[in-house]
Amino acid sequence: MSEKKQLIIPRTLKGFRDYLPETMIPRERLMEIAQQVYRSYGFVPIDTPALEYYEILSGKGSDETDKQLYKFEDHGGRMVGLRFDLTVPFARFSAQYIGQIGTPFKRYHIGKVWRGENTQAGRYREFLQCDFDTIGTESIVSDIETTLVIHDLLNAIGFESGYKIHINNRMVLSGLLEKLGLLEKNAPILRALDKLKKIGRANVAAEMVAVADITEQQADFVLQLAELKGTSDHILTSLSAMVSGNAIGEEGVEKLQTVIKNVQATGISENVVEIDVSIARGLDYYTGTIYETFLKELPSIGSVCSGGRYDNLAGLYTKQKLPGIGASLGLDRLLAAMEELGKIEKTATTAEVFIPYFEEKRLSDYLKLATELRKSGIRVEIYPEVKKLGQQLKYADKRGFLYVIIIGSEEFDQEICQLKNMKTGETQNCRIYEIGNFLKGNALL
Amino acid sequence: MSEKKQLIIPRTLKGFRDYLPETMIPRERLMEIAQQVYRSYGFVPIDTPALEYYEILSGKGSDETDKQLYKFEDHGGRMVGLRFDLTVPFARFSAQYIGQIGTPFKRYHIGKVWRGENTQAGRYREFLQCDFDTIGTESIVSDIETTLVIHDLLNAIGFESGYKIHINNRMVLSGLLEKLGLLEKNAPILRALDKLKKIGRANVAAEMVAVADITEQQADFVLQLAELKGTSDHILTSLSAMVSGNAIGEEGVEKLQTVIKNVQATGISENVVEIDVSIARGLDYYTGTIYETFLKELPSIGSVCSGGRYDNLAGLYTKQKLPGIGASLGLDRLLAAMEELGKIEKTATTAEVFIPYFEEKRLSDYLKLATELRKSGIRVEIYPEVKKLGQQLKYADKRGFLYVIIIGSEEFDQEICQLKNMKTGETQNCRIYEIGNFLKGNALL
Repeated sequence: MSEKKQLIIPRTLKGFRDYLPETMIPRERLMEIAQQVYRSYGFVPIDTPALEYYEILSGKGSDETDKQLYKFEDHGGRMVGLRFDLTVPFARFSAQYIGQIGTPFKRYHIGKVWRGENTQAGRYREFLQCDFDTIGTESIVSDIETTLVIHDLLNAIGFESGYKIHINNRMVLSGLLEKLGLLEKNAPILRALDKLKKIGRANVAAEMVAVADITEQQADFVLQLAELKGTSDHILTSLSAMVSGNAIGEEGVEKLQTVIKNVQATGISENVVEIDVSIARGLDYYTGTIYETFLKELPSIGSVCSGGRYDNLAGLYTKQKLPGIGASLGLDRLLAAMEELGKIEKTATTAEVFIPYFEEKRLSDYLKLATELRKSGIRVEIYPEVKKLGQQLKYADKRGFLYVIIIGSEEFDQEICQLKNMKTGETQNCRIYEIGNFLKGNALL
Repeated sequence: MSEKKQLIIPRTLKGFRDYLPETMIPRERLMEIAQQVYRSYGFVPIDTPALEYYEILSGKGSDETDKQLYKFEDHGGRMVGLRFDLTVPFARFSAQYIGQIGTPFKRYHIGKVWRGENTQAGRYREFLQCDFDTIGTESIVSDIETTLVIHDLLNAIGFESGYKIHINNRMVLSGLLEKLGLLEKNAPILRALDKLKKIGRANVAAEMVAVADITEQQADFVLQLAELKGTSDHILTSLSAMVSGNAIGEEGVEKLQTVIKNVQATGISENVVEIDVSIARGLDYYTGTIYETFLKELPSIGSVCSGGRYDNLAGLYTKQKLPGIGASLGLDRLLAAMEELGKIEKTATTAEVFIPYFEEKRLSDYLKLATELRKSGIRVEIYPEVKKLGQQLKYADKRGFLYVIIIGSEEFDQEICQLKNMKTGETQNCRIYEIGNFLKGNALL
C-alpha cells in the first residue's frame, strides 16, 4: 500500500468527553458505593434502553425538553430519541410491568442520559444519572427512608458531616397559599421562590408581584415563611402557627415533623439534616417532601442530591395511580466537587503491586508469583517486557503503584524478594511465601 | 381537567429490551466480577461517549457496519452515530491520548453499543460489551496474560472447569499457506475455515476451492492442519512438522508453545485451555494469538469470550503504531447461558433480611433496628406500610428475602424477636442485639 491515506482526526463531539483512567477509577468507585447503599435498603436495579420511541419521550410535552432531545428516524422509519433522563423511562417501565412486579417497588437505575444543551454554560451533553425511587406507597416511611439513603450515600462517599440535607414539604407552602387565597397561583410563586438562593429576596418578591400577580404584602408573607431559620423544633413551631387552621398546611407540618423525628431517632444529627422552607424545587410534579443536598465546603456547586414525593409517576402511560418518592445523586457533579476539594487520590492503576520483569528465563516464575498473590486477593501487574529495572520503576511510579516486588534469578532460587514501598522509597527483604500475608497483615492495601 | 387524555402505549422499540430486577441483579453481578478480575491484573477503566462523529465510526468503511450504524444529524448539523462496538472508540481514544498515558496501556471498558441488526436472527439492537486490551507491546507475556484473564473470568463467574479456551495463532496458518504458495489467498481461506464448526468439512473444502480458487488437495491439506486433535504436545509436534522450513509458521508454533507452557505453569490444566487450529476468527485484523471460549454444557451458544492479537489498533487516526491484544467477554450471552443452565438463583431483592412493619407506634424502633443491622453489613428492607403480617410475609416470599425478623411491641420491650428462615419456614427466637452476629456468624448470608 504505497498510497498515502489521509488520517482521520481523533476527537470527540462538542459537549462530550472521554474518561481517562485517573477520572474513571474514582467514578467507578462512586457508582459502586451508590449501588451498595441502595442495595442495603433493598432497592433493586433495573435497566432500560438508551433509545425510546419519540412519542414516549415527548409525552410530557415540555418545550425545553423537546428542544434538547436527540431525535432521529431509525432504519425502520420510526421516530426515536435518546433518553434525556431516567424518570420518563421509569414511568414507561412502571406502566408496563408494575402488575407483574407488584408494589411497593423500590428501584435504582444508574445510566447515561443525553441532552443537546448549550455547552457554553459548562454543561455536558452526555452525563450519568443515578436515581432511586420507591413507588406504589404514600407512606411517610418511604420519605424517612429516602432521607436515610441520601445520608448514607454522602457518608459512604466520604463527606461525613461535610454536607447538609435540606428538607421541605410542598404541602406547607400550599397550605399557606390556600390560607391566603392564592392556591391557584401556586406554580408561579414556587418558581419564583426557587430562585431565592440565586437572585435574592428583593428580586424574588418583585417576580412574585409581577408574574404571579400577588400583592407585596402577600409576597412578603410567603418569603417570611420561606426564610424561617433555627432548630427544627423552632421552625416547626413557627410553621404550625403560620399555617394554623389550614388542613393541608397542618398536614404538611406534621409530615415534616414525622420525617425529622424519625431520622433523628436513628442517630442522625441536625448537623446534616435540617428543615429549609425556602427550597421549593421548580418541577411541578412534586407534591410532598422535597430534598436538596449541599456540600458545606462547596455550596456553589449546587445540590448534589435532589428529589421529592410525587402523586402520580406514570399518568401518561397508565390509569393506575403510582405515587412515589425518589431522589437523584449527582454523581458527575460530586466527582467534580471531590476533585476540586482534593478528596480524590489520583492514580492511574487499579493494582497495588507491580512486579518488574527483568530475568527473561524466569517468566513462568514471575507468572506463578503473581497468580499466588492474586489468589490471596492482591491485585498485581507484571511488566510485559524485559527492560532495565530503572525504566520499569519509572513506569510503576508514573502509574502510582504502592508496592514493587523486585525479584531476580538468585532471589527466586533463595525464595526471597525485595519489597519496595513506592511512597517512602523504603526497601526491605521479604520471604516470597510471606509477601501476601505481609501486605495484607500490615493493612498496607 | 375533565378532558379525557389519550394514554401513550408503554412499549420499547423492536430489538430493545428492559432489564427487570430478576435479570438485572445477576447482570450487575457479572459486571462486578469482570471489573474485579480486570483490576486484579492492573487493567484500568476508561469510558467514551455513546455518540461519535460519523466520520470516526465509519472510518473502517465496512459496508456491513455502515448499514447497521445508527446515524443522524445533530442540532449543530454534524453527522453523528451511536458507537457499534468499543474497539473503534478505543482506537480513536488511543490515538488521542496515548502520548499522555504512555505504554504499555491496559484498559477495560464495559459499555453499551448499538447496531440496527436484523432482529429476526434473535439479535438485539442494544447490548453490553465488556472488553479488555493491552496495547503498546508485542510481548508474548500479554498473550499469556490474556489467556489467564479469560480463565479467571470464567472461573469467577462460576463455571470452574465447565468451559474450554481454544487458542490458535494466525501465523501457523499463514506459514502453512506461504509454504503452499497460497499466502495471497489467506483471507478467503480463513473465512471459509472459520465456518468449520457450523457447516462441516465438505462444505468448507468446497468453499475454499470455489471462492479462494485453490485445488482440492490444497484445501484438504489446510483442513488436515485445522483438524489436529490431541494433547497440546502432540499438536505442537505435528504442527512443527507441517510448517517446517517456513519462518512465519515456525514462529507461530513457537509462540503457541510459549503461551501453553506458561499458562500451564500457573496451574491451569489442559482441561480448560487447549490448542485448536480450526479457529481462525473472520476479522482480518488479527495477526497472532487468537481465542474463542466455549461452554462445555452449551457449546451451541457460541464463543463467550473471543479476541486476539493485532498489529496496529489505530492506524486510521494516528501514525503511531499500536500493536496489542485483547478479548471481549460476551456478558449478555453468558447471562442467557447461565439462565438456561439454571445457574442463576432468581431473586427480586438485593436485601437478605425483611422486617415487617405492623406496630405503628414503634416506627422509630423498627428504623433503629434496621440501621443497626445495616451498620454490621446486613442489607435490610422495612415494609413501608402497616399491614397484616400475613400480607407482608407474602410480599417477602414473592421478592425472595432469605430471612424475616418478626418483632412487635412486646418483643421490642423484651429486646427479643422471631427470626424466620424463608427457605425452611423455621422460626426461632433471638435476642435483638444478637441478630447481626447470628446472621453473619452462621454464614447465612
